[in-house]
Amino acid sequence: MPDLSTFTLASTVAAVFGVSLGVMMPAIAMGWAISRALDALSRQPEAERSIMRTLFIGLAMIESLAIYVLVIVLIILFRNPLLEYLTQ
Amino acid sequence: MPDLSTFTLASTVAAVFGVSLGVMMPAIAMGWAISRALDALSRQPEAERSIMRTLFIGLAMIESLAIYVLVIVLIILFRNPLLEYLTQ
Amino acid sequence: MPDLSTFTLASTVAAVFGVSLGVMMPAIAMGWAISRALDALSRQPEAERSIMRTLFIGLAMIESLAIYVLVIVLIILFRNPLLEYLTQ
Amino acid sequence: MPDLSTFTLASTVAAVFGVSLGVMMPAIAMGWAISRALDALSRQPEAERSIMRTLFIGLAMIESLAIYVLVIVLIILFRNPLLEYLTQ
Amino acid sequence: MPDLSTFTLASTVAAVFGVSLGVMMPAIAMGWAISRALDALSRQPEAERSIMRTLFIGLAMIESLAIYVLVIVLIILFRNPLLEYLTQ
Repeated sequence: MPDLSTFTLASTVAAVFGVSLGVMMPAIAMGWAISRALDALSRQPEAERSIMRTLFIGLAMIESLAIYVLVIVLIILFRNPLLEYLTQ
Repeated sequence: MPDLSTFTLASTVAAVFGVSLGVMMPAIAMGWAISRALDALSRQPEAERSIMRTLFIGLAMIESLAIYVLVIVLIILFRNPLLEYLTQ
Repeated sequence: MPDLSTFTLASTVAAVFGVSLGVMMPAIAMGWAISRALDALSRQPEAERSIMRTLFIGLAMIESLAIYVLVIVLIILFRNPLLEYLTQ
Repeated sequence: MPDLSTFTLASTVAAVFGVSLGVMMPAIAMGWAISRALDALSRQPEAERSIMRTLFIGLAMIESLAIYVLVIVLIILFRNPLLEYLTQ
Repeated sequence: MPDLSTFTLASTVAAVFGVSLGVMMPAIAMGWAISRALDALSRQPEAERSIMRTLFIGLAMIESLAIYVLVIVLIILFRNPLLEYLTQ
């Protein structure tokens, strides 16, 4: 099994860079949404309830995108189903 | 079977970077939609119901794009149909 | 058949990156369309029905572009017609 | 026949990336068209019929561009006419 | 086991760059949100409570993205589950 070490090495490096790249754009998107929400709050404070509800449902949907990346990275680190073909 | 290890290696790395790349633009798109919705809410609070409905149907359709990527990545990690040509 | 493993390897990697690339621009386009629809709703709430109809037909046509990519990727993963030339 | 495997390999990879690249700009173009149509609807709601007709003819013509890519990719995957020179 | 040293080297380097890349965009996003919050506060000081609540929940959700990166990096540094395949 000479390739097992290469496999663990590449998985580790890919996991780190994958999760780093995967949170970049969700963070930007959240920043936009929050800053626009604060702008809306200052212009229309009486619409606070509907602004907050829209913002938090939206943030939860963006967060779900980052969680997809996290789930794939954790699967690869802790229980990669492809690994059993190597360890046989 | 000398290529099975290369196959698992490349699949793993591709899965991580694929899902990272695949959530980038949906996240940006969601951020735009949410920030514009909050802007619209602050300017026209009485149109809340139609703004919310438009926003959430739109977010669901963008989310579906990210789920396409997730489905392909999970298929490749857990049950890649091309793998049976290698393990025979 | 020394090339079958290379074939499965390249197909898998191409499938992941293909679907990642393929959802990028449709996601951006949907984000634009939705954000402009919300803007239009806040300026002209009484035109809601025609705005919604235009938006959803438009989103469905953009979604169809992403589905083209998904269909090609699924064909290549599950039943690539070119594979029979290799397995003969 | 040493070249048949290389041929199928390159065809598969080219099909995936071809369709991914091929839907990118049509998606952007549709997004622009739809967002501008929604903008026009909110400013001039009484011109709805001519705006909708113009938009849908335009979307159909952009969609046709993406369908060209899809058709070429499906021809290459399912019945590539150049393949008979290799299998003879 | 000649590859163990390469493995630790690459893990360390990847951990450093991964966490560096992973905090970039959350930092930008937080900066946007905070600067917009201060802008909103200066225009509407009496809405301070709702602005602060929105800002802090939003910052916490962006922070969670950076924490995902940190968790993956700490897992890789302190207890990488893939390492047991190498040390056997």
